[in-house]
Amino acid sequence: MELTVGQLAQQIGADLVGDGSVRISGVGPVKSGDKNTITFVKDSKHIASLETSRAGAVLVSRRIEELAKPQLIVENVDVALIEVLNIFAPRLRQVPEGIDPTAKVARDTKIGKGAAIGPGVVIDDKVEIGENSVISRGCKIGENAKLGKNCRLDSNVVVYHNCIIGDNVVIQANTTIGSVGFGYSCIDGAHRLIPHNGGVVIEDFVEIGANCCVDRAKFGDTVVGAGTKIDNLVQIAHNVVIGKRCLIAGQVGIAGSSKLGDGVVLGGQVGVSDNIEIGDGAMIAAQSGVTHSVRAGEQLFGTPATTKRDALKTVTLTRRLPKMAERLQRLSERIAKLEAAENDKR
Amino acid sequence: MELTVGQLAQQIGADLVGDGSVRISGVGPVKSGDKNTITFVKDSKHIASLETSRAGAVLVSRRIEELAKPQLIVENVDVALIEVLNIFAPRLRQVPEGIDPTAKVARDTKIGKGAAIGPGVVIDDKVEIGENSVISRGCKIGENAKLGKNCRLDSNVVVYHNCIIGDNVVIQANTTIGSVGFGYSCIDGAHRLIPHNGGVVIEDFVEIGANCCVDRAKFGDTVVGAGTKIDNLVQIAHNVVIGKRCLIAGQVGIAGSSKLGDGVVLGGQVGVSDNIEIGDGAMIAAQSGVTHSVRAGEQLFGTPATTKRDALKTVTLTRRLPKMAERLQRLSERIAKLEAAENDKR
Amino acid sequence: MELTVGQLAQQIGADLVGDGSVRISGVGPVKSGDKNTITFVKDSKHIASLETSRAGAVLVSRRIEELAKPQLIVENVDVALIEVLNIFAPRLRQVPEGIDPTAKVARDTKIGKGAAIGPGVVIDDKVEIGENSVISRGCKIGENAKLGKNCRLDSNVVVYHNCIIGDNVVIQANTTIGSVGFGYSCIDGAHRLIPHNGGVVIEDFVEIGANCCVDRAKFGDTVVGAGTKIDNLVQIAHNVVIGKRCLIAGQVGIAGSSKLGDGVVLGGQVGVSDNIEIGDGAMIAAQSGVTHSVRAGEQLFGTPATTKRDALKTVTLTRRLPKMAERLQRLSERIAKLEAAENDKR
Repeated sequence: MELTVGQLAQQIGADLVGDGSVRISGVGPVKSGDKNTITFVKDSKHIASLETSRAGAVLVSRRIEELAKPQLIVENVDVALIEVLNIFAPRLRQVPEGIDPTAKVARDTKIGKGAAIGPGVVIDDKVEIGENSVISRGCKIGENAKLGKNCRLDSNVVVYHNCIIGDNVVIQANTTIGSVGFGYSCIDGAHRLIPHNGGVVIEDFVEIGANCCVDRAKFGDTVVGAGTKIDNLVQIAHNVVIGKRCLIAGQVGIAGSSKLGDGVVLGGQVGVSDNIEIGDGAMIAAQSGVTHSVRAGEQLFGTPATTKRDALKTVTLTRRLPKMAERLQRLSERIAKLEAAENDKR
Repeated sequence: MELTVGQLAQQIGADLVGDGSVRISGVGPVKSGDKNTITFVKDSKHIASLETSRAGAVLVSRRIEELAKPQLIVENVDVALIEVLNIFAPRLRQVPEGIDPTAKVARDTKIGKGAAIGPGVVIDDKVEIGENSVISRGCKIGENAKLGKNCRLDSNVVVYHNCIIGDNVVIQANTTIGSVGFGYSCIDGAHRLIPHNGGVVIEDFVEIGANCCVDRAKFGDTVVGAGTKIDNLVQIAHNVVIGKRCLIAGQVGIAGSSKLGDGVVLGGQVGVSDNIEIGDGAMIAAQSGVTHSVRAGEQLFGTPATTKRDALKTVTLTRRLPKMAERLQRLSERIAKLEAAENDKR
Repeated sequence: MELTVGQLAQQIGADLVGDGSVRISGVGPVKSGDKNTITFVKDSKHIASLETSRAGAVLVSRRIEELAKPQLIVENVDVALIEVLNIFAPRLRQVPEGIDPTAKVARDTKIGKGAAIGPGVVIDDKVEIGENSVISRGCKIGENAKLGKNCRLDSNVVVYHNCIIGDNVVIQANTTIGSVGFGYSCIDGAHRLIPHNGGVVIEDFVEIGANCCVDRAKFGDTVVGAGTKIDNLVQIAHNVVIGKRCLIAGQVGIAGSSKLGDGVVLGGQVGVSDNIEIGDGAMIAAQSGVTHSVRAGEQLFGTPATTKRDALKTVTLTRRLPKMAERLQRLSERIAKLEAAENDKR
């Protein structure tokens, strides 16, 4: 796929400044772009990098004076970037509509119009797959699970029985939805599993990365709210309830029955204890361990996590401990001297 | 499935107090239960919540006076709860006994009576599967692996060659047993893999969550002891030996050749260094990093982990560092004043 | 497989000291070896353990005087150990060359001579598989992906479209290569995925453990450099570039666009922030959180990570905080006493 800058400007509705004949075949970052790529600048501090960039053109929201490169001026660089990336996205063969002959689909399922069921997929009794959803190679969908429209399950995803998945949900390869949670009672010295009769509800527009686990609830449902995005290798325990539009980075673990409000952001490798609540819009820095409930809008860091402000102050002071110890030693010596002087007088 | 409270009491052998005609169709927590659920109270501090609970009935170990709800009085609430949950568990279609026609089973295997081999399963030479074990869709079992009776391997589990799995073992979806461990020798500047001739032994009644890894041993075996329960996304490295009835929470990592005694509890995201021993009944708090051997019964926290008591004291004092720094400053000023007074006298 | 010590010495070119007729059928550690195993000692401090070892023979680099056991003296114990382990490795049935009838291979692929495509594998259009590569049961290879020679993909590995894998690469079970990264723009209050047009490049001799994730790049490539070894459950985010011969332990997470030089070692559960650089040969201790760029050769520890020397000093002093607090209290009392004496005089 190759377009002139002029054609590209037209396709995305951008104002073109400069030579429209430059040919573009992809998108690249400011630093490593080659002359056939278009790059982008979101804020003024990166404009300087453009001077040395080899990119053939640039997406900007305001015209940059005296730049040698052609500029595509757009209202919102983020939106335009997504459009341009979609234009240059690799053209993959569509997964063919219908059921691959090597898939095993139980008789009493409902497969929506336009849905594609890939090779080696196994779909159990009473499953419903919505219109235009793509169930890729090797996925396993358990009894009575329901998927909405326009979903995409990548290769080898496992969805256990009774899980409910909304519309426009993406789940990447090797992820497990609806496994039994880690709930045991100690009876006569042995750990006995508490049966998990509940399910999982994944709401619309949720996207889940690769190799994640979302456990089913003991009773009721584990819930991932609409528009929430989850990175790879994330663990969502039984009965967790996640609000809408949260961002959950890689390798996060959320323990049983904890609740996240809307718009919560968890950095990579964060751990959240069981049975706590994290308020709307709270942001937890990477690797923190949250052991108590968090108010809306708070920013936390550390294990156990405190407010980011306190945690960073503590880190700074902790690093000054060697100096503090020395100072304590010097003060002690000065006091000893004063005491000796005092004793001399007596 | 719906039962009256009276029928339910009869089925689990409970004493009924109150109206036996209330209809129940499931189990729920005290707070969110609806009137068709039965809830449960294990200790007296949660009795107050029952007043406002909408649940239709309650499991208790001692009669609660003046409660409007029907009560099922049982000896052990934990045991009764498991029984009741099993009664209301979703009725799933049994995986049919025998070998699915799309499974690929080598000729010289032994498949026990009542065992079920699901679609797309691949079973290599000399594998043995015990009676009534269920090997779900897409599992791959390597040459010479042995599984006991009544096991359940969920979808897409991979068991490498020569691994030995006992009776009544559950392994959830997308878990890998017997991968080669992370053991390299640096030879002439390159990392060369040390061949892993050993295997994995998973003893009876072990339950392993989804997307876990248990590496095979270099020599001898990586061992998971009987009755141990492992949550999701856990990493068990080569030659690790885990005792009996341990509880290992999500995203824990145990490095090579470390040993856990019996009844050890590791919180979520704990890391255990290689070549150390953790004594019977030790409890390690979530996110801790254990860098040295731990005595039986110890409770540890932090990275590097110390006794929980010391670690919490340290956390408290660390948070007081800003005040300590101020105090040090004030003492310094008071000393300076005393020194000045002393100098005046000379 | 059983050999006499004499035969073994001959096969690996070792000098034999002692009885060559002892029969050996495997390799074991010094402590737990039985009489049919050969053990090994790499450095002099472990020689004492040999006295009590039950092993039938030992690999050493220098003759040990007065040892009752037969000794195989070799130039490099690491090299000899790998040779001996290979001799005693379990003999598994070769995966048969060619395409299993249950595999689904698109027509316009190139499958090299001697390559083996296992049961249930799905290979999409325009994929290339090099000579003698083994694609195990249940793997899914996306459109236009290229694999080199002598690769081994274990069961249920998923490689997305356009990923490039070199020669002699090993990827263990349930690992995902080329999933879409965690890159979103917030547009009108919703998180919209930034299309990931880039790919993944895995260079020669890379080995990746089980249940890992390597995300594809937004543009350009996520790169794992030649000879780098990656343990289980590791997360490599989009646009990460890893140098040659790195060692990345279990459950590490490397966030977007960060760069590792050559020979970097990351301990288990380390987290690396996005957009930073870690210089050649740097070593990061387990569970550390690296939040800023690291110079070549540095050794870091802690969250946020500092030099290992500073971090350990800080840990020591932090543990002395209770004593420091007491000392501060005593100093304060001594000052108060001096002040009282001073006041008396006025």
